[in-house]
Amino acid sequence: MAEHTIAILHPGEMGAAIGARLRAKGLRVLWASAGRSAATRDRATQADLEDAGTLRDALAASAIVLSVCPPHGALALAREVAATRYRGLFVDANAVAPGTSREAALAIESAGGTFVDGGIIGPPPREGTSARLYLSGRDVARLAPLLSSGELVAHALDGPVGAASALKAAYAAWNKGATALAGAVRAFAAQAGVGDALVAEWQGTQPDAMKRLEQLRGAARKAWRWTGEMDELAAAFAEAGLPEGFHVAAGEVYERLASFKDARTAPPAEEVFAALRNAGH
Amino acid sequence: MAEHTIAILHPGEMGAAIGARLRAKGLRVLWASAGRSAATRDRATQADLEDAGTLRDALAASAIVLSVCPPHGALALAREVAATRYRGLFVDANAVAPGTSREAALAIESAGGTFVDGGIIGPPPREGTSARLYLSGRDVARLAPLLSSGELVAHALDGPVGAASALKAAYAAWNKGATALAGAVRAFAAQAGVGDALVAEWQGTQPDAMKRLEQLRGAARKAWRWTGEMDELAAAFAEAGLPEGFHVAAGEVYERLASFKDARTAPPAEEVFAALRNAGH
Repeated sequence: MAEHTIAILHPGEMGAAIGARLRAKGLRVLWASAGRSAATRDRATQADLEDAGTLRDALAASAIVLSVCPPHGALALAREVAATRYRGLFVDANAVAPGTSREAALAIESAGGTFVDGGIIGPPPREGTSARLYLSGRDVARLAPLLSSGELVAHALDGPVGAASALKAAYAAWNKGATALAGAVRAFAAQAGVGDALVAEWQGTQPDAMKRLEQLRGAARKAWRWTGEMDELAAAFAEAGLPEGFHVAAGEVYERLASFKDARTAPPAEEVFAALRNAGH
Repeated sequence: MAEHTIAILHPGEMGAAIGARLRAKGLRVLWASAGRSAATRDRATQADLEDAGTLRDALAASAIVLSVCPPHGALALAREVAATRYRGLFVDANAVAPGTSREAALAIESAGGTFVDGGIIGPPPREGTSARLYLSGRDVARLAPLLSSGELVAHALDGPVGAASALKAAYAAWNKGATALAGAVRAFAAQAGVGDALVAEWQGTQPDAMKRLEQLRGAARKAWRWTGEMDELAAAFAEAGLPEGFHVAAGEVYERLASFKDARTAPPAEEVFAALRNAGH
C-alpha cells in the first residue's frame, strides 16, 4: 500500500470531481467497480481513476480512503470498510450529523483504522468552481496539504471528530433550510391566492427570498437526495439542544419534490410550487 | 359618528405611527385611554390622537376601527368590539393566521358590523420609512385611498377576508423565519466549536446569512412579541397542508430571546447566541 494512493468510495458527481483533482496533482486514485453502475464507471473513467475491482482490493492498495456517498449510506459504508479490517486512514467526507461521524469513527477505529472527519462545502471542484474540504480529528494538519489540489482546498479544523461534520451541517442547515423555507412560503401564498402579491413584495424588499426560489427550482432534481440530509440535520440540532423543526419541515419540502428526480432540466417554478402544495392534500 | 373618524385600537408603536399619518392628512383619529398604560398615552399624545376615554365612546364616535395590537390579543379585541354591538367598519390589521381573521370576522359581522381583513408590511410609517397596508374583503377598493397617507400605502387585494392576513403571514414567515433559522444555525455551530469557521464561510459565500444574524441581534428585544406570531404561522401552514415545523422552531428561537425584552440597546451577538444555546440545556 503506497502512502499516496487514495481510494474514492464512490465516484459520484462529487467523488469523481475530487478524484480528478487528486489525479491532476499526480496521486494514484483507485475506485472499486464491483457492484457499481455504468454511470459510476463513466464518471470514474472520465476522471482518470484506476479500477481496483473489488472494495477489498481497493482498500488493500490504499493508505487513504475518501468516503463520498449519499448521507444515508455513509455509516453503512464505514462499517463495510471496517469489516475488511482496513487499518489505513478513513476520511468520512459525507454530509452526516456529528453523532453519525462518531459512530462511523467507532467502527473504523475498532477495526484498527484511523478515522478523520470531513465535510465538503461548495460544488464539485472543477476548473473555475472551488470547494472546501474541512477536516477534523487527529493529524489533520498533515493531511490537509496532501488532499488540497487547486480547486479543492482542504482546511484543518482545530477540533475532534464531529467538528468538520458540524461545520458542514451548519452550512447546509442554513443554505438548504432557507431554500426550503422560501419554497414553502411561496407555496403557502399561492394556496391563499396571494402569490403574485408576495412576489411583488419580495422583489421590492426581500431579494434574498427571490434568489432562494430560483435556487429551489434549480435544485428540484436533487431534492430526493436531500431528504436524508435534512433528517440528519434535525437529529443534530435536537442533540445540540436546538429546535429540530426547521429541518423536519425542510425534509418534508424536499420529499414533496422527489418526483422531479428524473427531470432532464429544472422544472418551471409553477410546477415546483404545485408539487409543494399538492402533496399536502 | 362621522364618516372620516377612525378609532385606533391601540396606539402601540405601529398604531401610533399610523394614527399620526392619518392625522397628518386631516382625519379625526380617536383612541381610548381607559385601561391603557402611560406609555400608550405618551405615544397617542405625540401622534396628536384624540382621547375618547372608554372603548365604548371611541366606537360610538367612529365609522372605522383600525385594530393594531399584539397578535395574541387580536381575536379578543374583535370580540370586545363586537360585544358593544359596533355596526361600523372594523379593519383587523394584525399579524394573525387567516383562520383567526375569519373568526374575528364572524364575531364582528354577527354583531352587525362590517369586517375588513388587513395586513401591515414594513416598519411603522414615518418620514422616510414607508409601510404597506394590504386590505381584503368587501369594498376595499373604496377604503384603500381613505387609509393611504404618504408613508402608509394601502393596497386593495382582490380576495376575501383572509387574503390580506395570508400575505402578511407569508411575508413574516420568510422574514422572521429566515432570521430565526440563521440564529439557530449560528448557535448550533457555536455549540460544536465551529462558530468562527462558519462565519468565515458565510462571509465568503452566504452574505444573506450574515445579514440575518445582524437582524436577529437588532430584533432580540422584540423577540418576546414574535412567539405568538410564530404560533399563528405554524397553525396557518398546517391548515394550508404545508409543513408547520419551520415556525414551531422559529417560535422556540424567539422564546429563548424573551429575556432581552427590557434591554435598552441591542445585545452583543455573543449574548444572543448564548441565550439560544443555554435555553436548550
